[in-house]
Amino acid sequence: MSKPKLTPSSFIGNQEEGVISFGSGQPDLPPPKEVYQILPHYRDFKYGQVQGQFKLREALAWHYPKSSAESFVITNGASEALDLTLRVLARNGDQKPNKVLMARPYYYSYPHIAQAAGMDPIFTDLIDGRIDIEDFERKIKDCKAVIINSPSNPTGRVESVETLQRIEELTSQYRVYVLSDEVYKDLIYVRQNYLIKGPHVVTINSFSKTYAMCGFRVGYLWSLDQDLVNAVIDMKSHTSMNTNILGQEMAYEATKVPSDFIYNQLEVWKKRRDLIYDGLKTLGLDLWKPEGAFYVLPFVGNSQEFVTDMFYEYKVITYMGDWFGAPGRVRFSYALDAKRIEEGLNRVGDYLKSKKKKASPKKAEAVAA
Amino acid sequence: MSKPKLTPSSFIGNQEEGVISFGSGQPDLPPPKEVYQILPHYRDFKYGQVQGQFKLREALAWHYPKSSAESFVITNGASEALDLTLRVLARNGDQKPNKVLMARPYYYSYPHIAQAAGMDPIFTDLIDGRIDIEDFERKIKDCKAVIINSPSNPTGRVESVETLQRIEELTSQYRVYVLSDEVYKDLIYVRQNYLIKGPHVVTINSFSKTYAMCGFRVGYLWSLDQDLVNAVIDMKSHTSMNTNILGQEMAYEATKVPSDFIYNQLEVWKKRRDLIYDGLKTLGLDLWKPEGAFYVLPFVGNSQEFVTDMFYEYKVITYMGDWFGAPGRVRFSYALDAKRIEEGLNRVGDYLKSKKKKASPKKAEAVAA
Repeated sequence: MSKPKLTPSSFIGNQEEGVISFGSGQPDLPPPKEVYQILPHYRDFKYGQVQGQFKLREALAWHYPKSSAESFVITNGASEALDLTLRVLARNGDQKPNKVLMARPYYYSYPHIAQAAGMDPIFTDLIDGRIDIEDFERKIKDCKAVIINSPSNPTGRVESVETLQRIEELTSQYRVYVLSDEVYKDLIYVRQNYLIKGPHVVTINSFSKTYAMCGFRVGYLWSLDQDLVNAVIDMKSHTSMNTNILGQEMAYEATKVPSDFIYNQLEVWKKRRDLIYDGLKTLGLDLWKPEGAFYVLPFVGNSQEFVTDMFYEYKVITYMGDWFGAPGRVRFSYALDAKRIEEGLNRVGDYLKSKKKKASPKKAEAVAA
Repeated sequence: MSKPKLTPSSFIGNQEEGVISFGSGQPDLPPPKEVYQILPHYRDFKYGQVQGQFKLREALAWHYPKSSAESFVITNGASEALDLTLRVLARNGDQKPNKVLMARPYYYSYPHIAQAAGMDPIFTDLIDGRIDIEDFERKIKDCKAVIINSPSNPTGRVESVETLQRIEELTSQYRVYVLSDEVYKDLIYVRQNYLIKGPHVVTINSFSKTYAMCGFRVGYLWSLDQDLVNAVIDMKSHTSMNTNILGQEMAYEATKVPSDFIYNQLEVWKKRRDLIYDGLKTLGLDLWKPEGAFYVLPFVGNSQEFVTDMFYEYKVITYMGDWFGAPGRVRFSYALDAKRIEEGLNRVGDYLKSKKKKASPKKAEAVAA
């Protein structure tokens, strides 16, 4: 029996008994209980503002400098915020070519979303998981926009404040829009988040990771370029209208939750990070130490074989680095409890041992022949 | 003081005391109570399937011939279903030019949504509110897709079954995709809905009008072209991912509500339809009798003046026909109770009388001069 070829959607919703999933990138711990408390008496049903509910935008404005409720658009997750922004930029009449720079490895939707918007993805390869600012500068001049994702999915790396500030300067100098995807901004282990700023910046965020509200699809964008914000609202008024009114109400409740919620989550993530990083290191794999988000991206050589064998023979879900522009690597999401992470690590260890064994007799045969 | 220029967004969310709104196209009566009953104990939070929740798609499949849950994608309202479908068609490699035929007057988002997807809108002008099948045939040959909207927003007209069948034939013959926007399919006063069918048909629908769930943004598309359905899912996996999981759960509850809910609503709409149609007729306006949906589109001559004066001087919201490709006309949505409709009609009557008065002295003066 041959093993069917795997894609990310092979795994979605897999809840098979005994399977350990390092696949999907979503928190396993529930949202703050407050987001459910409004449900029993909720009775609204009419259209909301396309831009998003005023009180939610006003609550967000407290966390962003120089801004008001007008600077935000509430979207169907960060995905729609990225999609709308790129679609607007692709049509903005700017003389620049419709190219979007992005670091590689990248979040797997970035190239698709760029192309769907009518823009060409251009890649700058990370060195040791970090932006190579020289290559970045060479390529940025010719682009209309760049997507920055720090902390990064899939690398787990956080760019230095110095690099982010250099990016602010270069993009300002070359008049390039920055789409800063900061959905993991509250999951940084090494420092506070650094907010990329400037009139040419669109910050993209969501309630999915910080508040574990993935399924409710409430994201947003923030920009001080009011024309751009208005163009996004206009586009959204035709393509999806308001974001689900109840999801927005739940997100608003999340904004009122004490920040202890975030710090407590971060503690949990940090312990898991240490567990999986040390575990994979001990197994001899080469990987970067995650500084944020909840992913590791070890080098395994043949990632297709690794992912396929781990799934069919060891019941462990991992994602192929190839899907993120990182061939030879494999992405592990560590959004699962310590016990399961340990069990998963054991299975990876067993697999690696069995591969070594298989390799050794062959070597012996080859010598004998 | 000059009166500021009005756009549809001038009116959104206007709840000023004493204003009668014939503006926004959304039911005023609430959804079935069943959709709220699941809220108190709801605790899910994870990503759902991008295609939509299986049980919801399975429930929908009961109402569509030859189909299964696989034939549906649950979307952020009918808007996203249209947007995704057009974006997929614009990139499908077909040799046909990227043109979309649509009847004029049209739903105001259609031309925008076509252009945003990278397609050119082509128009066929309605005759007395109905498709001119000869003009349709001349223009359809050169198009990749056509949007059909029967019952129509803004005309309130329903195409004859004969016309719809002729459209099935012509589009099949010329290999043109049909996007049949049937969001008003349960609001027809003159007959049962006729479902346009064929392997080249994408039917678009939503829970917004039938179940008054506009704000929750749950729509869907249905097609027997599985490649097209899969391409839409792929696109959506990058641009917005799953539709809000709780909205889908509420929509699923709506599918279980006895159909009496729909018939009772229809009775209410029909009474309102008679009230506003007879009322505007009596006031001497020229309009088509609505056969479905909840709009009338009378001819008023100077629609800019009508809408502006009615709003600023008579506190009545109406929409300019120009926004729907119908200059000289004005759209009234009759999604409000009978008492308010009557009050609105009185004010329109007062306005028309005052205009006549203003016109007459001038005439007299002209004669005197």
